[in-house]
Amino acid sequence: MGATKTIDFQTEPGRYRHWRIETDGPVARLVMQVDEAGGLFPGYELKLNSYDLGVDIELADAVQRLRFEHPEVKAVVICSGRERVFCAGANIRMLAGATHAHKVNFCKFTNETRGAIEDASENSGQTYLAAVNGTAAGGGYELALATDWIVLTDDGSAAVALPEVPLLAVLPGTGGLTRVTDKRKVRRDRADVFCTVEEGMKGRKALDWRLVDEIVPQSRFADAVTARALALAENSDRPAEAKGIKLGALDRKIADDSVTYSHVTVDLDRSGRIATVSIAAPESTPPADADAAIAEGDQFWPLLAARELDDAILHLRLNESEMAVIALKTHGDPAKVAAYDDFLTAQSGNWFMREVTLYWKRVLKRIDMTARTLVALIEPGSAFAGTLAEIAFAADRAYMADGQFEGDNRPEAHIVLTPANFGPYPMSNGLTRLQTRFLAEPQKPAELKARAGESIAATEAEDIGLVTFSHDDIDWEDEVRIFMEERASFSPDALTGLEANLRFAGPETMETKIFGRLTAWQNWIFQRPNAVGAEGALKRYGSGQRPQFNPERT
Amino acid sequence: MGATKTIDFQTEPGRYRHWRIETDGPVARLVMQVDEAGGLFPGYELKLNSYDLGVDIELADAVQRLRFEHPEVKAVVICSGRERVFCAGANIRMLAGATHAHKVNFCKFTNETRGAIEDASENSGQTYLAAVNGTAAGGGYELALATDWIVLTDDGSAAVALPEVPLLAVLPGTGGLTRVTDKRKVRRDRADVFCTVEEGMKGRKALDWRLVDEIVPQSRFADAVTARALALAENSDRPAEAKGIKLGALDRKIADDSVTYSHVTVDLDRSGRIATVSIAAPESTPPADADAAIAEGDQFWPLLAARELDDAILHLRLNESEMAVIALKTHGDPAKVAAYDDFLTAQSGNWFMREVTLYWKRVLKRIDMTARTLVALIEPGSAFAGTLAEIAFAADRAYMADGQFEGDNRPEAHIVLTPANFGPYPMSNGLTRLQTRFLAEPQKPAELKARAGESIAATEAEDIGLVTFSHDDIDWEDEVRIFMEERASFSPDALTGLEANLRFAGPETMETKIFGRLTAWQNWIFQRPNAVGAEGALKRYGSGQRPQFNPERT
Repeated sequence: MGATKTIDFQTEPGRYRHWRIETDGPVARLVMQVDEAGGLFPGYELKLNSYDLGVDIELADAVQRLRFEHPEVKAVVICSGRERVFCAGANIRMLAGATHAHKVNFCKFTNETRGAIEDASENSGQTYLAAVNGTAAGGGYELALATDWIVLTDDGSAAVALPEVPLLAVLPGTGGLTRVTDKRKVRRDRADVFCTVEEGMKGRKALDWRLVDEIVPQSRFADAVTARALALAENSDRPAEAKGIKLGALDRKIADDSVTYSHVTVDLDRSGRIATVSIAAPESTPPADADAAIAEGDQFWPLLAARELDDAILHLRLNESEMAVIALKTHGDPAKVAAYDDFLTAQSGNWFMREVTLYWKRVLKRIDMTARTLVALIEPGSAFAGTLAEIAFAADRAYMADGQFEGDNRPEAHIVLTPANFGPYPMSNGLTRLQTRFLAEPQKPAELKARAGESIAATEAEDIGLVTFSHDDIDWEDEVRIFMEERASFSPDALTGLEANLRFAGPETMETKIFGRLTAWQNWIFQRPNAVGAEGALKRYGSGQRPQFNPERT
Repeated sequence: MGATKTIDFQTEPGRYRHWRIETDGPVARLVMQVDEAGGLFPGYELKLNSYDLGVDIELADAVQRLRFEHPEVKAVVICSGRERVFCAGANIRMLAGATHAHKVNFCKFTNETRGAIEDASENSGQTYLAAVNGTAAGGGYELALATDWIVLTDDGSAAVALPEVPLLAVLPGTGGLTRVTDKRKVRRDRADVFCTVEEGMKGRKALDWRLVDEIVPQSRFADAVTARALALAENSDRPAEAKGIKLGALDRKIADDSVTYSHVTVDLDRSGRIATVSIAAPESTPPADADAAIAEGDQFWPLLAARELDDAILHLRLNESEMAVIALKTHGDPAKVAAYDDFLTAQSGNWFMREVTLYWKRVLKRIDMTARTLVALIEPGSAFAGTLAEIAFAADRAYMADGQFEGDNRPEAHIVLTPANFGPYPMSNGLTRLQTRFLAEPQKPAELKARAGESIAATEAEDIGLVTFSHDDIDWEDEVRIFMEERASFSPDALTGLEANLRFAGPETMETKIFGRLTAWQNWIFQRPNAVGAEGALKRYGSGQRPQFNPERT
């Protein structure tokens, strides 16, 4: 599962099988009604609103569209289209049949979608709440935990639960433990009890233990949810009268060894295990003003490039798992990239520019979280300015070409810093990439900010620490080739661990805890015979046989 | 390996095979000269100052003795007794042959020893430096990283290195990655380069990249190290003239189903998989003053109880890996425990009381980090006051008996808070256990502090959140039994992951990153076929055959 079929992260509401978007003025409802027969792979049925990656791809799409296509929506209710069932979480048979790599990447993507929901509530004036009309178990409760307000029906039966440990011998895979202790601040001993009670907790106890925010009798449930949504909408600064930006289908061609978009291309060197992602700078200067940008809609370069890059990264993660290295390149005029950054900064009060900027923040985080070696190749003719330079700062290493190359008339490579490098794109540790990079020299980002707009050539970029190495055209090809070959020769697992630890220096946040500590433990457990062995809990679930555990604690 | 032989954590310098302690006024030298034939298990030779758990047990003992037995020592030089070799790190054949559980617990213990070194530098006025006279590789460099100052000989060959990823397909297992990025603040791209270069870095480059603090030509090496040690000693507040506290052998009897010390007993219920650890309160009131406490030496109750409890926990971790639950009990007079806490608080300016308090901090952290279900059973006749109450706050749950039990004339259980619960024993997240417990009610610890000294009975302790549940004698036995049985029925791995995530709410620190993120990734990798499979790098190391890797990235 996950190895033989190309997984498409692009969809649109007309093709949804599992979700509906219903809008009513400032309030939208995201209605989950999973098609049991609509699983991404054969071999399981998505009963009781359980989900697989395909269901979450639709949710991620819906969350994205609500932000761009519905500026008037100020509160979003996640609810179930089924009677007395909210969501049973990730489908267990799907998990039992999936490869390790698929499980890990599935959890990573769902974690990112939960993060996008929290980002909307926190930064986009679109606050999510969960209307839990029946049991929310496992990933179902984790979905609710990603919202800012959980309303639970008090019908004597509906409960919230994290039954993974007692039932399946795995952890809640989508941030549940961390959100229980760190977001909802449930006392740790109560969290321990809660996470070991298969049936979860309901009613007054769920409220008293901080597991939900509100309990309401079934008779008043719908009204209470609407009232709460309207109240949350009151605090939003989203414009009620603005016209949304329709997100059209991406212009994308998937061939054997390439994926081609309008501004992004992916070239696959299968024998070298190198995926090269190239991003084109805009061809023109930015529009005259915010209205003109809105008129460009989904063709506005920063939005278009972000969407294409996001799709390319997800494609590589799930569909090209043997690529060892993602080489990140750009081409075009750095001044035009910088001009767009200046435009976004100047227009940051506009809802659309805010959405575009927040989206780039999430795409860059998606890159940070991608378990492949990331290398920026800053070559003649490249456009590593501002937002695109941030991609180089997200990479594990950056190689920069020094001077023009013989027989190559493209301009010498330069890095240009813009306001985009000093605030709008924090990493999940809460720091900018330059702050994280220069932890030992905390004054450095301010010094660099004073040089925004300068064209910084290779030797200087190396001197001031913006790139790892600079090489002239005599050495460039060999140095880059040797690095790529070396990387492909290392254990993929050791690299995953290495990169996950080196990329996030400095403070930890709930987000880094989820992607670091929690995910790493879950991945560990996802390999243990007690979970995935023939006698393990995941394999034996629903068989009537009890799992057999090796009692040894580590 | 690690399953059939009882590992003894008690030793003393007369029995060391691998280390020497040399003191010279304010400076001590810890000289590492590993006996190749002195491995804890057969099947490997400890060449090139490589180490196994036995070597680290001696180091942990030496670090502890320097603090207690040598108040006059203000700086400690870790150095090698071999020419041109500092330390080659953990022995690879030992790792290749060890069980998963042994590897995990070995790394955990060495991590704690590194933490004890940092604690001495930071809090005990005994600053460590590393005199790297030859290559420090892997765990050898990690040992140096735990010190506050690394001097590297600049002889054209000595290097520091973390070659685990390229050589062995695992991670540096003792905090190396985190200390490189977060303690030494090495730029992440340089850290990436450093961790993939087998031979490491030497001389000027090691210094420029912040990997060491000082490089010195071989001719001046010894003098430079001494000068630096003397300079570091200048800042210490340790008393030059005080007499040390000799740490005598513990009074310990290991039987089939028990371990008995003077104030601590461990009872093993093998069929129930429950280890019960009971700690006796002091029988008498504290000594009159600090001099009298020093005169008691290693029989001073807080020191004696800490040493015995520490040994008991380590014994359970390594030698009783099938125990699912550690039940923590106390007995005696809570007022006497509180009196000792008050004494320690009043005498906190004395070097010995400071050492005792810092040791309790480390023992409590050792409990926090123990991968077993921890439950406090607060019964009639118990003494959960102050320092001993902290053990209950370290537990995953606390059950408290309400009232006296029929036919039991011991006094009703009470909890007594003391100054020990409000500052001296921070968890590795930097917060006290009560602060962590009450993240949702940040004012609560201050409210509780105002009640220090009160005897708090069960129902009130439950009401104010100090315990998880209180039960009267009708329910007590069943409730506790059901909990223990349930716990023993769950997957040990899922519980390890659950507990590791729930115990450390709130801020993360370098320490929690090491024990959380880094350790979890390392444990994951320690199971992957790319490392430990028949064709994996650990197994094939030294065989002349290259490892075969599955290229799939997760």
